[in-house]
Amino acid sequence: MLGTILYGAHDVRVEERAVPVILKPTDAILRVSAACVCGSDLWPYRGVSPVEKPMPFGHEYCGIVEEVGSAVASVRPGQFVIGSFFASDNTCPNCLAGFQSSCRNREAVAGAQAGMLRVPLADGTLVATPEIPPEDLVPSLLTLSDVMGTGWFAADAAEAGPGKTVAVVGDGAVGLLAVLSARLMGAERIIAMSRHPSRQKLAREFGATDIVTERGKEGVDRILDLTGGIGADSALECVGTRESMMQAIRSTRPGGRMSYVGVPYGVMLEVQELFFTHVSMLGGPAPVRRYLPALIDLVWNRKIDPGKVFDLTLPLSQAAEGYRAMDERRAIKTLLRT
Amino acid sequence: MLGTILYGAHDVRVEERAVPVILKPTDAILRVSAACVCGSDLWPYRGVSPVEKPMPFGHEYCGIVEEVGSAVASVRPGQFVIGSFFASDNTCPNCLAGFQSSCRNREAVAGAQAGMLRVPLADGTLVATPEIPPEDLVPSLLTLSDVMGTGWFAADAAEAGPGKTVAVVGDGAVGLLAVLSARLMGAERIIAMSRHPSRQKLAREFGATDIVTERGKEGVDRILDLTGGIGADSALECVGTRESMMQAIRSTRPGGRMSYVGVPYGVMLEVQELFFTHVSMLGGPAPVRRYLPALIDLVWNRKIDPGKVFDLTLPLSQAAEGYRAMDERRAIKTLLRT
Repeated sequence: MLGTILYGAHDVRVEERAVPVILKPTDAILRVSAACVCGSDLWPYRGVSPVEKPMPFGHEYCGIVEEVGSAVASVRPGQFVIGSFFASDNTCPNCLAGFQSSCRNREAVAGAQAGMLRVPLADGTLVATPEIPPEDLVPSLLTLSDVMGTGWFAADAAEAGPGKTVAVVGDGAVGLLAVLSARLMGAERIIAMSRHPSRQKLAREFGATDIVTERGKEGVDRILDLTGGIGADSALECVGTRESMMQAIRSTRPGGRMSYVGVPYGVMLEVQELFFTHVSMLGGPAPVRRYLPALIDLVWNRKIDPGKVFDLTLPLSQAAEGYRAMDERRAIKTLLRT
Repeated sequence: MLGTILYGAHDVRVEERAVPVILKPTDAILRVSAACVCGSDLWPYRGVSPVEKPMPFGHEYCGIVEEVGSAVASVRPGQFVIGSFFASDNTCPNCLAGFQSSCRNREAVAGAQAGMLRVPLADGTLVATPEIPPEDLVPSLLTLSDVMGTGWFAADAAEAGPGKTVAVVGDGAVGLLAVLSARLMGAERIIAMSRHPSRQKLAREFGATDIVTERGKEGVDRILDLTGGIGADSALECVGTRESMMQAIRSTRPGGRMSYVGVPYGVMLEVQELFFTHVSMLGGPAPVRRYLPALIDLVWNRKIDPGKVFDLTLPLSQAAEGYRAMDERRAIKTLLRT
């Protein structure tokens, strides 16, 4: 089968790879319906995080169960399923606390940009849709594997909710879906920080009430202007740089909450500044598994259309162009047809 | 009148100072009943934070109202009152959100180690006791001005509560009172991290169920041992160093909460490590004013005796020895009789 492999900075190749097989009784093998390129993939793609050996790429997936191991009870061949980028047993104390991406037995899923994929801990990881979905729902269902679940976690961790003023830092796919999530949670005012017209437009479609184009100190000042000098109740950091972290923290009112879901690399924070902000912080890899049933329901019933973040669809064979387009910010998010 | 002045590192002097007067209609002048030495005073005392000019010292206080400005309505001369180290208007949005120590009009109170003290924003800052307290209640009432309020905030911010397992990092007065606060909030298990027998004893009196003497990685491993490998639900950081911050963060379970109330100096944190812990963080100067009415009630009705943290009582004239004793950890906390 064909699959992508990252060889080094800016070097993604589509090559023939071995078809995965059941390795443990808890595994499942999926025929991948669609995969995509994640913003977090851009760290190794850009050489910011090292690539020590050729790496099968992709961790967002949905597809049809082809085969299950002997211990798998909750999904069966022929079902359409979605899972998280971290496989989880969904029974350990961390899973039961709702933090499946900190499962004590978690395993990273890798190599999803391919025709077939092995998913460990299938019972704790995969959630089936009611039936095989119509083709037009596949992109939105695919987002639930990571990017929509991550936007939802950003809104949940920062307690976006009825009556709240929410600032979203970052206009990538996660930031845009964080806007959608905050709207679904009932936030009153949602300020999207974006300077790209096409992304601003999608942010508005998803529920943003205000757009702030400024960054840095000017961006913080604009948020303060919009909130009577106090700051937002919730700030959702969806990038992963020091600039975006500080932007979010400084945009939050004392007693407010800031979430950070962009994978951070080499970011250091000065604690005394945090201390005097009185801002709560919670971040981390989204516990996608916690949200899958509710989000599948919303997509299935066509209440939300998070698949709109895919503005570039390519066959798997053109994955390298999919990466380039996202790296150069020509595309918000690339869907790969397998 | 006599009052303490910090001249530089390890140089506290008791000198004749001008009696404070009403400067604004919102001020009150107190006759100080008792003052004390704060752990945060040790930063400038040790030269860690610079002393640019001689600084009237002390910010924890209680006493009798001597005089009030023309705009003061909620307290009157003759009342015994307690206030926070940050004066607050208690009406701005940050105050109404319960974060009076981030009041938009806050003013630091300084020079409390003296016979008389000016307190700005008296209406929003001072809370009176039902009557003039008996002498034996004064030390406990004094703690409410900062150290007990800070321990309470540590427990509140980390959501210590019924059924919770709470780890307290730091066995200074704040840490010990954080133990007491967690007990009052109904925590099931309270692990005090302390290697000093006299402090361990007081921690047990205040409600600690377990003592961990190890620090660093060994300390974290002990907390994990005590919690089935998962970590504490809440970790309360009551020191302000990088070591104690990391101790607290690494001792908390994914989805748990860590509070930090020790004023941090020069502490940097690596965000990627925080990210993968899934630990919520909230810290800052305690919003003492929020807690004063409830805590005064608990002390007044002799439900709690936080004044036990004072293991050294000296006349104001011997303030320098009070600082030395705390600096050398010979005393947990020094009360100064004015």
